Amino acid sequence: MGRSAIAEATKVAMAARRAAPDLMAAATAAKDAVLAKSAALLVDRRKAVLSANARDLKIGERQSLSPALLDRLRLTPERLDEMRAMIDAVRVLPDPVDRSLGEWTRPNGLAIAKVAVPLGVLLIIYEARPNVTVECASLAIKSGNAILLRGGSEAAHSNQALAVCFQEALRASGLPATAVGTIPPADRRAIYALLKRDDLIHLVIPRGGPSLIRAVTAKSRIPVIKHYQGICHVYVDAAADLAMAEQIVVNAKCQRPGVCNAMECLLVNAVVAPSFLPRIGDALASRGGQLYACPRSRAILGKRPYVRPATPAHYRTEYLDLRCSVRVVEDVHAAVAHIMTYGSQHTDAIVSQDPAAIAIFVKDVDSASVMVNTTTRFSDGFQYGLGAEIGISTDKIHARGPMGLDSLTSYKYVVTGQGQLRT
Amino acid sequence: MGRSAIAEATKVAMAARRAAPDLMAAATAAKDAVLAKSAALLVDRRKAVLSANARDLKIGERQSLSPALLDRLRLTPERLDEMRAMIDAVRVLPDPVDRSLGEWTRPNGLAIAKVAVPLGVLLIIYEARPNVTVECASLAIKSGNAILLRGGSEAAHSNQALAVCFQEALRASGLPATAVGTIPPADRRAIYALLKRDDLIHLVIPRGGPSLIRAVTAKSRIPVIKHYQGICHVYVDAAADLAMAEQIVVNAKCQRPGVCNAMECLLVNAVVAPSFLPRIGDALASRGGQLYACPRSRAILGKRPYVRPATPAHYRTEYLDLRCSVRVVEDVHAAVAHIMTYGSQHTDAIVSQDPAAIAIFVKDVDSASVMVNTTTRFSDGFQYGLGAEIGISTDKIHARGPMGLDSLTSYKYVVTGQGQLRT
Repeated sequence: MGRSAIAEATKVAMAARRAAPDLMAAATAAKDAVLAKSAALLVDRRKAVLSANARDLKIGERQSLSPALLDRLRLTPERLDEMRAMIDAVRVLPDPVDRSLGEWTRPNGLAIAKVAVPLGVLLIIYEARPNVTVECASLAIKSGNAILLRGGSEAAHSNQALAVCFQEALRASGLPATAVGTIPPADRRAIYALLKRDDLIHLVIPRGGPSLIRAVTAKSRIPVIKHYQGICHVYVDAAADLAMAEQIVVNAKCQRPGVCNAMECLLVNAVVAPSFLPRIGDALASRGGQLYACPRSRAILGKRPYVRPATPAHYRTEYLDLRCSVRVVEDVHAAVAHIMTYGSQHTDAIVSQDPAAIAIFVKDVDSASVMVNTTTRFSDGFQYGLGAEIGISTDKIHARGPMGLDSLTSYKYVVTGQGQLRT
Repeated sequence: MGRSAIAEATKVAMAARRAAPDLMAAATAAKDAVLAKSAALLVDRRKAVLSANARDLKIGERQSLSPALLDRLRLTPERLDEMRAMIDAVRVLPDPVDRSLGEWTRPNGLAIAKVAVPLGVLLIIYEARPNVTVECASLAIKSGNAILLRGGSEAAHSNQALAVCFQEALRASGLPATAVGTIPPADRRAIYALLKRDDLIHLVIPRGGPSLIRAVTAKSRIPVIKHYQGICHVYVDAAADLAMAEQIVVNAKCQRPGVCNAMECLLVNAVVAPSFLPRIGDALASRGGQLYACPRSRAILGKRPYVRPATPAHYRTEYLDLRCSVRVVEDVHAAVAHIMTYGSQHTDAIVSQDPAAIAIFVKDVDSASVMVNTTTRFSDGFQYGLGAEIGISTDKIHARGPMGLDSLTSYKYVVTGQGQLRT
């Protein structure tokens, strides 16, 4: 069983590798036609997709999956419409392939062009979210890459039915259907075997919790783009507009607390802490918030019922709910030091009207996104105008922060001469 | 012993990690001052460096190292002058940090800037070439990165003496000397332990043969930039200027045969093969060349003494000397197919006056560098005008082809608002 699952997964990966040059060479119009056809097939095959999903839901109920998981797994006609709209949104984006990344001429007359090219074969490893299947397949096709989809076993039938839409659309456009491959989730050894095949796969993107990402990174010989947690900070400076600061902190914490770009720790300059802390504490508490506060914060906040003592472990916690940590800091340098010690280099914000403090924060906070006088919640590919997002990288290699279509490309140098020789 | 080597290496890596923020924040003038001082110290400490090198050479002779290896290891006053010139050449390059990689404004008024930042801590693993120590330390400092140098044991004393110049220069400029760390080559387990520390090190660059690169990739949890072999092709098209083709092929093969961007396989279009093959064969042979030729080539070349039959194994061979493979192909598509089957995606050239053939070759050959009517030997960071080269990547992730200072940076998004909130 182990051996046959490995053989099967390897076969799918080899077929995707063979399909990759056709995707790489495909014209923009051809790729867009595949996406239009995939969206149409999602409508045509609605019944088959929903019945595959019903099988997953039935198995999931039998296995007593949590209601939250079952909800994420559930497909409805409305959710299929959203998926279709998503495919269309990717289709109308500019083609990232063949973009010029620079052109120059050397003194000897050689013309050098740096041109974007697809990566080749992507492997996406994810959990029980069928929409990831549609999103990643669309982004791969648009960027000229073949893709291997390895979703969670809970969504196996749904993912398969969705992938078939893309495979049929590829076939209908004269492109190899094997450019979208699904890896059956039955056997973990199959995915571990694939993670050694750097001859077949060029980039691995695990989309899931830290333990999944860590396991993939430990096993992989292929480059992995990681998305670890977001321990995001808002620092309220001595020179902050406190009304603006209150709005930004409430937005960063409460607008959608369960996501990676929500604020998890509030840092307040000691000068404004006495006036700002009670005000923001009460504002957060009125929305259900709870604060793990440092001793100086507690001295200011007194016996307010929503305040608990903070330990260093709290500063490293991604709450993903309405709780947060609070600490009073002496100045912007202390804020930076706290962020670089306890943060996750995801997204950190400063609220200040002082250009000098802003410049220090922007320069010294080494995070993928540094926000000035706005909320951490804007750290997102759509909000940045990238049009789509395959993930948010907490790596610094290859791609960092919100990853759009461009992050799924590499480049080549094209050097044109008239017979120049090296001497 | 194993445990203490691991502890020692980890201590050096932790110190480099702690030093990284200071390098990251260093102004251009401060980094340039460190490089100027390092170059000066290379002169001041000439006696100490040469005597450390003499120790390495003595041990090497006792261990019966090959004359070639001993030559690469040997430092002379002239070679030290070359090193000093190299540090100066890096010093005068533009600072890659803080470069704007794009700026745009969103409809809600958010100003988004994508700005280059250093990677953090680099680990370079290399063999017995002391000049790599100087080159990599210079490039790391200029790009604001801390660096861990793990050279071969044959050059241990030389590398240490050279690294001290950079460490003293850092100290003299008020920057942490630990930003340039040396990992003693005594114990392999120490380097294997470091390759797991993705909390301390951000990028690994092995500079050496394929077996070194493979071992590092297999053991590493940190991203590795690989430089595998260069199996470079020149394709002489039906529409080639044959005089130009002859010059390009001779240059690509003979100008410096022992390097990765030298031609290893010549592909000749069937239309011009009868006239071109004897001419180029004799030209290569007159320079000491030997051809491993396909059956169709042999039919044309007849009983010339420099011709041997080619097997598929020859097409995958990086000769690094005056031998090469030769194959007749039907058209540009067959040339592309050969290159994508047997090549290493390093550098491949077409010689042709036909824009259609050139366009197909440029689009379909997925190599880091594609040369049109010029020699593969130009595939090089200096020749491309990058000013310096930390290596040539055969990867497609993060950096591809010749890697200059820019490849040692990542980026951050700086988002500036006036209190915008997410709704």
